[in-house]
Amino acid sequence: MTAFSAVDVIAAKRDGGVLSDEMITWMLDAYGRNEVAEEQMSALLMAIFFRGLNDHELDTWTARMITSGERLDLRGLSRPTVDKHSTGGVGDKISLILAPLVAACGAAVPQLSGRGLGHTGGTLDKLESIPGWRATLSNEEIVEQLETVGAVICAAGAGLAPIDRRLYSLRDVTGTVEAIPLISSSIMSKKIAEGTSALVLDVKFGNGAFISEPDRARLLARTMVRLGEAHGVTTVAKLTSMSAPLGRAIGNALEVTESVEVLRGGGPSDVRTLTLELAVIMLELVGLDADPATALDDGTAYEVYRRMITAQGGDPDAAMPIASLIEEVPAPRSGFVQSIDARSVGVAAWRLGAGRARKEDPVSATAGVMCLVREGDRVEAGQSLFALHADDDAHLDLGREAITNAVVIGDEPPSLDDPQLDLVRA
Amino acid sequence: MTAFSAVDVIAAKRDGGVLSDEMITWMLDAYGRNEVAEEQMSALLMAIFFRGLNDHELDTWTARMITSGERLDLRGLSRPTVDKHSTGGVGDKISLILAPLVAACGAAVPQLSGRGLGHTGGTLDKLESIPGWRATLSNEEIVEQLETVGAVICAAGAGLAPIDRRLYSLRDVTGTVEAIPLISSSIMSKKIAEGTSALVLDVKFGNGAFISEPDRARLLARTMVRLGEAHGVTTVAKLTSMSAPLGRAIGNALEVTESVEVLRGGGPSDVRTLTLELAVIMLELVGLDADPATALDDGTAYEVYRRMITAQGGDPDAAMPIASLIEEVPAPRSGFVQSIDARSVGVAAWRLGAGRARKEDPVSATAGVMCLVREGDRVEAGQSLFALHADDDAHLDLGREAITNAVVIGDEPPSLDDPQLDLVRA
Repeated sequence: MTAFSAVDVIAAKRDGGVLSDEMITWMLDAYGRNEVAEEQMSALLMAIFFRGLNDHELDTWTARMITSGERLDLRGLSRPTVDKHSTGGVGDKISLILAPLVAACGAAVPQLSGRGLGHTGGTLDKLESIPGWRATLSNEEIVEQLETVGAVICAAGAGLAPIDRRLYSLRDVTGTVEAIPLISSSIMSKKIAEGTSALVLDVKFGNGAFISEPDRARLLARTMVRLGEAHGVTTVAKLTSMSAPLGRAIGNALEVTESVEVLRGGGPSDVRTLTLELAVIMLELVGLDADPATALDDGTAYEVYRRMITAQGGDPDAAMPIASLIEEVPAPRSGFVQSIDARSVGVAAWRLGAGRARKEDPVSATAGVMCLVREGDRVEAGQSLFALHADDDAHLDLGREAITNAVVIGDEPPSLDDPQLDLVRA
Repeated sequence: MTAFSAVDVIAAKRDGGVLSDEMITWMLDAYGRNEVAEEQMSALLMAIFFRGLNDHELDTWTARMITSGERLDLRGLSRPTVDKHSTGGVGDKISLILAPLVAACGAAVPQLSGRGLGHTGGTLDKLESIPGWRATLSNEEIVEQLETVGAVICAAGAGLAPIDRRLYSLRDVTGTVEAIPLISSSIMSKKIAEGTSALVLDVKFGNGAFISEPDRARLLARTMVRLGEAHGVTTVAKLTSMSAPLGRAIGNALEVTESVEVLRGGGPSDVRTLTLELAVIMLELVGLDADPATALDDGTAYEVYRRMITAQGGDPDAAMPIASLIEEVPAPRSGFVQSIDARSVGVAAWRLGAGRARKEDPVSATAGVMCLVREGDRVEAGQSLFALHADDDAHLDLGREAITNAVVIGDEPPSLDDPQLDLVRA
């Protein structure tokens, strides 16, 4: 292996050049060995923010992140593997429903997940509100559970794309989170390393999403689909709007409860609809001919969910914890709900205690927001718009402040056009 | 003082915004207190590389670098103060001659200098080849010597723009040296803090200079002139070509010897000419009506030089050290010298031991290159082009390799147009 100078690699990208395979491999490996300093890597990440990575550079970068750690081999399973990843939205509890649902239809869903940061919640944080449930499994336990239950949602182990863990922390403090090649390689390195054969990406746009502009979300989707295919993972992306919260519940235990409602054939229609749309694509990708709506309605998906929770130490029949303080937010006037601002609601849930500002912060199982109205609803002055759930007054005060002005009420019914939902395929 | 988040400041610049005075001040101060991490500052520096700083941002940035440390007050001197700074070239020993020359004409020259890095030498490294000479003076010694001798060349103390010291080291390893606002603020913060009332900048362009393109050198010159004037320092910049080495000697003791030749009325004509041009501007800036050519020819400049060296513990009569190995490089063919590549010669001197790759490396007093021919000279095959000076065979081998192809020999005499020499004034 040729040794490069970190400054030469940084300057090459800074000046708009293409990094060779050897440069990329050396830089990531040397960073892993602490021979490239944090300040050198952050300068390179910022140069990549401005200059980008071409397809070949991004393939090499991602491949090296994968080979920096272990890669699960799921080819021995009797079921086809397919997974889903969402770029994150407010009230996005789809994974909790989708993994057991798709497993109930015959696939194996190896969902290795992360925790939430900022105003969007994390799947693991939600499941950890279930008494006894544990996020950490060994590789052997993951494979075993996929074979017997068909679905696993657990923490991505430290051995999977370990460089990504360091890069993600570095990007978080250096203003380099938003670069599309860096987002893509971070997500896809972990998904490719987890060993799934097919993947559906739910790429959110709108003010409650990580990326607000649809065009940028589409570019991110295209980049990740190409990257997945280049690494042998059949990948499709769905672009979905995240302007209003998904469902009614935002918060860890609150979202588990809502997910169970959907798994039992009920729940908010937007959550059920999106879950079924994603399930249909996932089943198509692995060639399974099953009707996911039936699996929700006849209880088979719920049964897989119960087995999935039980297999990881959780009690699906345990009462979910409830916040000690619940306060309703009244409508300031009568009229029609024009919009419910997803970001404001997400920030309110975060401030109430459901999310974390730094990755080492704890989260509350019970805190969160219940949306009591939907866009288009007619409301009377004083009618409750939200119920805020918190463990103490300090958090309640913060949440109340954050949710002010989240709902716009007007005199006329709003026009509720469903935004165009694109699919991005290879 | 409002506290900002480093990520917010980085993202504001990254996205093309203008940083407020409060943001700049907070960021530099927090970096000084180690509350902003190196990787955060390097990300900001790279964002500045791409987005620049406007005049007001640069003024604020530079002002904060100055107020991060002490500022010399030279207003009590009986002589007017004027200094020179060169952006660095191969064989550029002008400061050694110019400081005593301008002092001999009645000004005080407070030249607080740095050491060399890479292929251009540092003034302090050159003077340290004189037995006994010391670079480090207290502020009181600087003021005293300026009053009694009129010229001081010494190390810029750690108290002068201390943030610049850290930023410079950081830029050096993160590929952010080349940004014009960062170069300008680094140079000018130290020159403004040293307390000079007037300043001439020798901004070099060409392949032996730090910046090769004349347009970029002009932009740097304009930026620094504006910055100096904004901080009350009368500033003029001269753009000079650095395609061939300046003079014949490149290396620490070798350049001291050549400087003394010029101070005694002799020496290479290009060194004498540039020195006199810069001296005329400096004297004009402080309103002194003296003829520097006379001061070189009648020995008064040399007398000030001897007093300046003596005042700092050096012996101006001591024999200069000589390398143990001297090897001549023969011309491969007969013809006319078309060009002598300054960068190759500079790199050769560096490899021979005269320069350092890292700031903590030692340098050789004796190593270097003597150019035995000039552009336009007629040479015969086998005639010596260079004499390489080294302390051991390993360095000699490296220098010999670096200087291969530094001279181009052709059949016809080259046309030697003096490049246009611009002055940049406020």
